[in-house]
Amino acid sequence: MNDKSTAPVTVIGLGLMGQALAGAFLKAGHPTTVWNRTAAKADRLVAEGARLAPTAREALRASPLTIICVTDYEVVRELLSEGDGELTGTTVINLTSGTSAQARQAAQWAGRRGARYLDGAIMAVPPAIGTSEAVILHSGPRADFEAHEGTLGVLGTLAYLGEDLGLASLYDAAGLVMMWSVLNAWLQGTAMVRTAGVDAATFAPFAQQLATEVAGWLPGYAGQVDKGSFPAEVSALETDVRAMAHLVEESEAVGVNAEWPRLIKAIADRAIAAGHGKEQYPVLIEEFGTSQAGD
Amino acid sequence: MNDKSTAPVTVIGLGLMGQALAGAFLKAGHPTTVWNRTAAKADRLVAEGARLAPTAREALRASPLTIICVTDYEVVRELLSEGDGELTGTTVINLTSGTSAQARQAAQWAGRRGARYLDGAIMAVPPAIGTSEAVILHSGPRADFEAHEGTLGVLGTLAYLGEDLGLASLYDAAGLVMMWSVLNAWLQGTAMVRTAGVDAATFAPFAQQLATEVAGWLPGYAGQVDKGSFPAEVSALETDVRAMAHLVEESEAVGVNAEWPRLIKAIADRAIAAGHGKEQYPVLIEEFGTSQAGD
Repeated sequence: MNDKSTAPVTVIGLGLMGQALAGAFLKAGHPTTVWNRTAAKADRLVAEGARLAPTAREALRASPLTIICVTDYEVVRELLSEGDGELTGTTVINLTSGTSAQARQAAQWAGRRGARYLDGAIMAVPPAIGTSEAVILHSGPRADFEAHEGTLGVLGTLAYLGEDLGLASLYDAAGLVMMWSVLNAWLQGTAMVRTAGVDAATFAPFAQQLATEVAGWLPGYAGQVDKGSFPAEVSALETDVRAMAHLVEESEAVGVNAEWPRLIKAIADRAIAAGHGKEQYPVLIEEFGTSQAGD
Repeated sequence: MNDKSTAPVTVIGLGLMGQALAGAFLKAGHPTTVWNRTAAKADRLVAEGARLAPTAREALRASPLTIICVTDYEVVRELLSEGDGELTGTTVINLTSGTSAQARQAAQWAGRRGARYLDGAIMAVPPAIGTSEAVILHSGPRADFEAHEGTLGVLGTLAYLGEDLGLASLYDAAGLVMMWSVLNAWLQGTAMVRTAGVDAATFAPFAQQLATEVAGWLPGYAGQVDKGSFPAEVSALETDVRAMAHLVEESEAVGVNAEWPRLIKAIADRAIAAGHGKEQYPVLIEEFGTSQAGD
């Protein structure tokens, strides 16, 4: 096995993220092969010492470890789905955004060519790559992750989630839903207080504090979900929905969008209709865990 | 003016929250008058030294400061809307949950009786009252807040939001939307990862960390909202919606409820249709700030 600090690596896909990944490997002294459909995107990296492979196939065969970071799984399919056995000894780590089903399918494509496969998801923007702030999720065979952990570590903070290849995509999606939910809640609140002349900068620290505080409840609430038992220790759902009604009414009265509050209330209303009014909020896992008629 | 430590105070409404408020005043040595429609709810407080007023009118006249904490504004109306001038010199602080419009109306009722009026909102559960964890929001004339700040301080951590009487209700609603949004995002994520056998306790710290991290972006994003300028420094909305499409697809594919992800995407889609695809997420303030056709 190569000394970790100099293990050769290939990066396929040179969008902003792929360029950042390849740049981090180069900076850490890894011999780095790159490939991109539009070769010109490799120019800066080549100037920094990267080797541009003439074809994707050659790029995949140039290193024992290849990172794929392309637009979507249609491109992953083009890269991986042809060929048979000639990538034995190679490990592919696919950081392309997609779903857990796509990740499992890509593993099959890679397997047919003899390659080992890990799926990953980058929870960071390109400028953060190469710093500890860039969290990169991985799932798939643990031994394959551990074999390349040293090399991958130059990209950011690594998290290994488990053998199930779909986990990186699922956690990624779960992280994104948290991100957009916090942002939307903040925007909803900002829109509401602005109707009384409060600016966004004044309101933001309040929203930040609330989000941080509520986030602190999650590990405790998780215990209720895992037990499937939801005693109303702090508040009962039927009390919560009365406040949700105020929230909807307030949003409508001040003339802001009430869709987000209305969905909050609609989901809780269904749980109450299902007989959970005396239980605590995490009982809504039953609503979130079940696809709805409209789905 | 009375010495703060012994200023008499009245509490009207003795649900769990009202009892906690009166109990905190008694514990701090304030002569405390209480009233509740169902007088039996005062028994424990009377045993602890509270005085039970025979009527709401007498309760309101018994102290220079009256806290009202009842079920809804219909009850507030019954308490405050009759009479004229006889509460001159009294300050009413209404902690009943409601909307900003209701708060402004209650101030008018109180004003007709000659009372000063502040509106408030309690961001805590009853057991937290009397500790610094209980945050109590106030809005209305600053001088009236400052006159009673010492007395009110025994209830928890006080926040004064401004002269606009509607601010306490608006901030309360904005805080609640953050609370339910973080909880719903966590439930959505939990439902998703559970389909791969991950338990809620394993996922919760990840969700907590994400929420806390994103909350830290809010003060910076607020600057974009206040400037009304949304350059895509980190990510463009059109990139975000591609990931939102994955989120919807993933939710549907693993058989969980996709309503919450679909609303996230629908709001962003509208902003893109309005020409904001190259801008950054906080540009959605325009969607949140405007009532929709369905509203």
